[in-house]
This record gives sequence, C-alpha cells and structure tokens, in this order.
Amino acid sequence: MTYAYDEKLDGPLRDHDKAAIVRDLHALLPDLQLLHTNEDLRPFECDGLSAYRITPMLVALPGSVEEVQALLKYANAHGVPVVARGAGTGLSGGALPLEKGILLVMARFNRILAVDAEACIARVQPGVRNLAISQAAAPHGLYYAPDPSSQIACSIGGNVAENAGGVHCLKYGLTVHNILKVEIVTIDGERLTLGSEALDSPGFDLLALITGSEGMLSVVVEVTVKLLTKPQSAKVLLASFDDIEKAGDAVAQIIGAGVIPGGLEMMDNLAIRAAEDFIHAGYPVDAEALLLCEVDGAESDVQEDCERVETLLRAAGATDIRLAKNEAERQRFWAGRKNAFPAVGRISPDYYCMDGTIPRRELSRVLRGIAEFSAQYGLRVANVFHAGDGNMHPLILFDANASGEMERAETIGARILELCVEVGGSITGEHGVGREKINQMCAQFNGDELTFFHAVKAAFDPAGLLNPGKNVPTLHRCAEFGSMHVHHGALPFPELERF
Amino acid sequence: MTYAYDEKLDGPLRDHDKAAIVRDLHALLPDLQLLHTNEDLRPFECDGLSAYRITPMLVALPGSVEEVQALLKYANAHGVPVVARGAGTGLSGGALPLEKGILLVMARFNRILAVDAEACIARVQPGVRNLAISQAAAPHGLYYAPDPSSQIACSIGGNVAENAGGVHCLKYGLTVHNILKVEIVTIDGERLTLGSEALDSPGFDLLALITGSEGMLSVVVEVTVKLLTKPQSAKVLLASFDDIEKAGDAVAQIIGAGVIPGGLEMMDNLAIRAAEDFIHAGYPVDAEALLLCEVDGAESDVQEDCERVETLLRAAGATDIRLAKNEAERQRFWAGRKNAFPAVGRISPDYYCMDGTIPRRELSRVLRGIAEFSAQYGLRVANVFHAGDGNMHPLILFDANASGEMERAETIGARILELCVEVGGSITGEHGVGREKINQMCAQFNGDELTFFHAVKAAFDPAGLLNPGKNVPTLHRCAEFGSMHVHHGALPFPELERF
Repeated sequence: MTYAYDEKLDGPLRDHDKAAIVRDLHALLPDLQLLHTNEDLRPFECDGLSAYRITPMLVALPGSVEEVQALLKYANAHGVPVVARGAGTGLSGGALPLEKGILLVMARFNRILAVDAEACIARVQPGVRNLAISQAAAPHGLYYAPDPSSQIACSIGGNVAENAGGVHCLKYGLTVHNILKVEIVTIDGERLTLGSEALDSPGFDLLALITGSEGMLSVVVEVTVKLLTKPQSAKVLLASFDDIEKAGDAVAQIIGAGVIPGGLEMMDNLAIRAAEDFIHAGYPVDAEALLLCEVDGAESDVQEDCERVETLLRAAGATDIRLAKNEAERQRFWAGRKNAFPAVGRISPDYYCMDGTIPRRELSRVLRGIAEFSAQYGLRVANVFHAGDGNMHPLILFDANASGEMERAETIGARILELCVEVGGSITGEHGVGREKINQMCAQFNGDELTFFHAVKAAFDPAGLLNPGKNVPTLHRCAEFGSMHVHHGALPFPELERF
Repeated sequence: MTYAYDEKLDGPLRDHDKAAIVRDLHALLPDLQLLHTNEDLRPFECDGLSAYRITPMLVALPGSVEEVQALLKYANAHGVPVVARGAGTGLSGGALPLEKGILLVMARFNRILAVDAEACIARVQPGVRNLAISQAAAPHGLYYAPDPSSQIACSIGGNVAENAGGVHCLKYGLTVHNILKVEIVTIDGERLTLGSEALDSPGFDLLALITGSEGMLSVVVEVTVKLLTKPQSAKVLLASFDDIEKAGDAVAQIIGAGVIPGGLEMMDNLAIRAAEDFIHAGYPVDAEALLLCEVDGAESDVQEDCERVETLLRAAGATDIRLAKNEAERQRFWAGRKNAFPAVGRISPDYYCMDGTIPRRELSRVLRGIAEFSAQYGLRVANVFHAGDGNMHPLILFDANASGEMERAETIGARILELCVEVGGSITGEHGVGREKINQMCAQFNGDELTFFHAVKAAFDPAGLLNPGKNVPTLHRCAEFGSMHVHHGALPFPELERF
C-alpha cells in the first residue's frame, strides 16, 4: 500500500532547493532544530499507519510559537508545503510527510501551562500527551475524558487535528466536545485565538472547524481543555449472545432506555476466540457475540444502572450475563477487548483495520453485508466495535505474501466503507481520513459538498500549503476515482479545484 | 435605538424594482406566498428585539425546499439580499429585515418528519417550535434538551441559527451539542447535507460552522436533533446569601465538586425583590443573593447530589437553604426566576437586557465592575444569571422619557460587554450578536480574526447576500467604531472588506 502524494491527482508541488531552505531557516531561526540528513529523517517517514512511508524533505522542531510563526511565514513566502505532526500515532496517515515539504514536529511543545481546578480546565501545549493531562489533573480529582487507545503516547495537538475519540466518547463526547479554546498559527504567520473559556463564542464556530481539520487549516500551538470529575465508581457487565444481531438489538435497547454507559463494546466470535486465546480474559468462546457494558458515576447510580442494563440484556436474549466481581476481573474483561487487535494479529499474518460509523439501527444490515463481502472475497473478517457509538472496526485477515490477498483485503475494506455511507453513516469514526481514506471521501461527499470544503480551505490557506493531499480530495481525484457526482455537469468554483 | 442597516459601514446595497421582483417571483413560483403591501409587511418589521424596526422590501413564505432553492437562485442572480427568519423571537435583531431585501419566513416548514425512538433522534422542518419537538417525543419518554425561555414559540431553525441555549445547557449543552445533521440550501440554490446520524462526520465540521452563523452562510431547511431520556426525578434547592460574592464562590464549589446541576441560577437583591413582589415565590427579600440549584437524574442519584450540594452551599456560607418540598413549590421557585425580566419591568419604565458570558472565576470582579458602572452613570442594574455557565443577564433600569437615560443605559451595556471580553469571556451567551452587538464584535475580535470570519463567509456567500450587516462587522465598521486592532498597519485580504 504505497499511497504517495500524487501530483497528477493531488495538485502539483513546487521543487525546492533543500540546501537553500536549510541555510535560510538556520539564518532566520538560529535556535530552530532542523533535521535534514537521511538517517535523521527516516524515523519520521510514517505515522501509525506504517504501510504508507515517505521520507520528508526536512524536519523542523520549533520550540516556541514565534518559531512556528516565522517558519510558516517563510514556507508561505517560498511556496513550501508544511505537514504538522504530533506524536505520530495517527492511523490514517494524516501526518504522512511530503518529499517536497517540511515536516513540522511539535514534540518540543510539551508543557502543561496551567491546571485550574476551580474552573475545571487545563491549558497545555499541543505536544503534551493525552494521558499526561489526566495525570496532571489527578491530584485535583479531575481528568481529561477523551481516551483514544493510544492515549499513553498520542499528543493533544494530534487529538485536536483528528477530533479523537475513545471507548468513553459515547458518554463524554469527542475532542471537539472537550476543548474550549485553541491558539493557532495561520499559514501567513498570524497567531489567533479561537473559542474562549466562556460558554460560547460569538461569530462563526472556528474552534469546531479547526477540530478534526487534520492540519489543513492552521497549526495548533496551545489548547485549553475541559476537565471532568472522576466517577466515584465503575462496573462492567459481560453478556453472551448466540446471535450477533441480538447483541446489536441489546445495544439499541440500552441506549433507547436512556442509560448512557461509560463504554459499550461488542466483539464477534472470531474476535472473542482470538482475544481469549491471547489474554485468557474469561470470555465465552462459543458465543456468537459478546457485549461489554461499563456504567460509571455515583455509587448508588451505578448500582441502579447495572440492574437496569442486566434486565435489558436478558430481555434482548443474552444467554449469559456476568458482572465483574472485583476490580481485577473488570480490568481482565477490558484487557481482552483492548488487546483484540494484537490478538487477531496472532491468528493471521496480516490484518487491515477499518474504521467506519453507522447509525445503530443499521448494525444488522451492515454485519450481514460484511459477512457477504467476506464470503465473496474469501477472507475472514473479525468484528470489534464501539457498539454504542455505531463505530465499527472490522479487521480483515489476509496474508500479504499470498498473491492477490492484499488487493482483496483493500477491496473488502473499500466496500465496507461504501456500505457505511450507503446506510447513512460515515467512512471514519475516530481514525480520520488522512491519506488512507482520501478516495472514499469521494463516495462520502458529492462535488458540491467538496467544493465547500475547498472554499473553507482556501479561506485559511489560499495557496494550499498546509498538509496537501490529505482529508479533502481534489475534484480531479474524485473524477479519476469515478464516484463523484458532478452537479449540473459543471464543477462549481473551478478556480478552487487545485486543492 | 435605531440601528438600521448602514450602507456606509455595512457595505452598499443595490436598489431594486420591487414590483419587478414580485412579478418575476410570481411567474417563477406560482405557489410561493409573497407579501408586499405595507400592512402585510409591518408585522415582520422586528424580531424579539423590538427596539429595532425596519420594514422589509417583501416577505416570501416558501412551502417547499424547491421553492427555497428557486428563490435563493433568483436572489443570487439579481443581487437581492435575503434575511431568513424563524419565529422571530430572537433577542439580538438577527432576523431584522432589510428595506432593500427579501425576508424569507420559514413558518410554513412546520412538520415533524420523523421521530425514531430507538435511535433517539427526530427529523424536523426548521419552522417546528422547540417545545413541539419535546411534545412529539414525549410518548416515547424522550425530549429535546435545549430549552430557551422562548421555547413555546421559537423555532428549531432559529435555534440552529443562534446556537440557542437555555437553563439546562450547563448540563445538556447548546444547540450545537444536540443536533446531528442539517439540510441547507446555499445562496446559489444547492441543497447540501451537513453532519450525519453517525458519531462523527469526516472532513471539516461544517455542521458546527453553520450552527450559530445567524443565517449568514445558508438557509437551513431540515434539522435532525438528538433526543434524550427524561430524567426520573428533579429537585431544587434555594439558598440565600448575605454577600453576592459568596454565592459566586458557592457556584464554583458545586461545579468544582463534579456535580453538574440541571440548572444553577443566581439573582441579586434587586432582582429578588422585584420577582418576589410579582410572583410571591417565597424568595428571601433580605438576601443579597440567592442561588437556585436543580439536580436531575435517577432517583437515588438526585438524593445523593442534593445532599452534596447542600453541604457545599453551607460551607460556602449560605445563610438559609430550602429544598422545594413538592412539585408545586419547585415550580414556584422556578416561576420567580423565569419571570424575573417582566418583574423588573414592573419596577422601571424601561430596562435593557444584556447577555454576556464570563469564566466563572471572574464573577466577583465583573459584579464589582457592574456596581461601579451603575454608580458612575446613576442607573440601577438588576443581576440575573445562568451562574453555572457564567452567562450573565444584567438588566439596566432606565426611563426612556428621562433625558439621556437611554444613552447612559447603552453606555453601561457596552461597558459591561467590554468587561466580559476583558476577563476572557464573550459578548453573548445565548442571545447572539445579530444587529444589536455588531459594534461589540470589534472589541471581541481583532482584524485578523474578523478577516477569517469574512473569508469563511465568502466561501459560502461570495456576494454577501445572506443577512448582511449582522453577526460579523465589516472592517470599515470596526475602524469607524474605533476599537479594531489592525495588524501591521494593513488590512489583510482587502478584497474581502466589503462584507
């Protein structure tokens, strides 16, 4: 899978004299850390989507907002594209470098600037790790809610860029619901504040616009996050089902009853067996599906919700329901789920992890579709998902050394995502579009819709220098990919089509 | 207070041949309802901010999306500005008409298209009243959470335009947190879908961008909202304080302890006395401040939270705490608060209601500031606020017939809003910018920030035909108003300054 930047489909990039840029930047910013030799650059050739690799032209590690401003001004003046990168844990290639561009690594922005326990907020630099925020807030009984699986390593700046979620986002929301304010630097070097510590900010909601924009609009240099009080108590129920559709119905019943679990996860038989084999979590290996449902909150509330959930699970046809007896068992139940990906890695030479989202009521239909694709292309698919959110992670099992299997895996992946769109869902839940799903964006959106993305992009970055080739496809790419709906036979705003 | 559209400050508007437009539209859209005689137009000359009045050139009442599309295409082709209007309950003049423009009244879009109890969503037309959604969802035990005081009359389309809140938004969020998807029509007549029923939508978050954009980017023709399960139980505590700053501290303590009340409201002595005189709610007329704190949720949870809140209130120095003994008393406690505005209206010939938001920790400082302005300009100010949100509604008491009092009231209002900005807050909490606060936007944002608003506006509405003169001031207006920070001595993107 080598999805390099394609100048024909993604727009032309200027050639640069790398030595001259290094010389200019050293003169302009004597303290700026610059990496430019091949061995220094190689560690930055990919992010968490390691199948895609490009060696960047050069890596810049600014240490101050002023350096970011000067660097972007320089890039703007000289037409050099810039890709910003946090911890590089992203799973869709959003921080994949450009061989004709600067990789702007925000790792040195690693300070927690303030924790205000009374206001329940923290002000942090973008390179701060997600988990480090919760650790800094812990002495006050507070934490930062969004918890992507990579939270030990991923940075808050990257979380903002991808609008990161996690197992708890059903109850506590995505990144966009948990941040109040960002400081950004625009491509022309201006520093702006978006949002405020107050309830709402007048004018257009540029904070939400920046969140999830995958580094295409600006570079985030400071983030103010909301902190929540730690729940008093958390309990987890494990329910077995002899039919995966019954498990899907149980999810709808729980949500429909007004219980909002801290986490509500589903696994199918293939995933259950793989996880049990690896972790010995105590999972029911004969079950067609299991549900893990965690309820958290005040002690008495948790007790009551647990009882309601148990009643609902039983009514939905659960064949067995177990409440984790103690914290150790609770942790073990979660360990099976959290290690489902590596567990699947043990039973297949390779796997391809998808990330699609669907309305919950379409779960049965999509599961049937996945089973059909699996049979049609002769590859097994294990299903693991954030069921409460309708966020699916089908894992397509294949062997890259067996002729044609990788291509079939990619085809199944694309068909699954297209099915997600067809039922009213979307091609990504929490991993972003990045480079990986750039073609599927042509299925998700029509030409009119993409045109507005391009126009918004142009409002922030008229020359298209920030992370080109990610997130929003050019109309050329979609025309080539063959699935764009061109309205009235004409591309609106043709002057924008270069993005 | 006559803030008509000012062509010098807000940009020139083309003159139109009204008769020709009426003729054209009748020919184009035989079923379109058009009002154009003076007596038909007068009812539409203002919205909830009745101090500002302009008779529109004509009023169009489309009944279908196709009519909206055709009408906007026509307006776009002929350069006619369009102001969309919901129920006209807005308090900042956001739906104030233009004498050279069409007022697009969405009242006929009044159908609830679907309530999906399993998915906890409803799909409605924009003219549906806020409360009607909850009424339609009630048989399923569900409701729509945002509850502006005008909820019996205001429309969901207007709620989206203003990102409406309400007493429960501390716990349940603003409109933007409670909608999943909108259908919009752009100025060139395209129909687009923003957002999805799934967890997250890829690409830029245009749904959030549209929400709160006050009709400047597009016309909303359908809204998909989230529905929540009705809380089992709700209790309200009334606490008295001999010092308003102690009441402010109590708010911080409650929030800091992790309790998220369904409502947390504060009133000062002047407001308490006015309300008690009018409603006989049982308020403590000698208290310097009172807090109303409602906790809702599961039965046992509410009991526990009530006890925690009571402990916190006592520790913060409450001189008296009363739990509403029954539903009748609970309703009476709320009736006092909800009628605080008309109650103040009884003790003063006129009052001017402000709407600013501040970080909760700045409450004492802002209250002191308001007291100083009140003394300096010789007008009384009653304070009523959504304390949990930091959303203040100071009511400035004056007599329009007393020479100079109205001007002094306006000066106090402007100074209060500027103080809100100074302490890191914003010039509006839930009433929007509209026409009323267009000048204060120049204090809230600098020229660079406004430039991005203009660029985003241009991405959707290049000719500036949708609701011109509202929400985002032109750079000319700010230069005139005298408080714009022009960066580097030059206006960036000068070609955009006409907006």
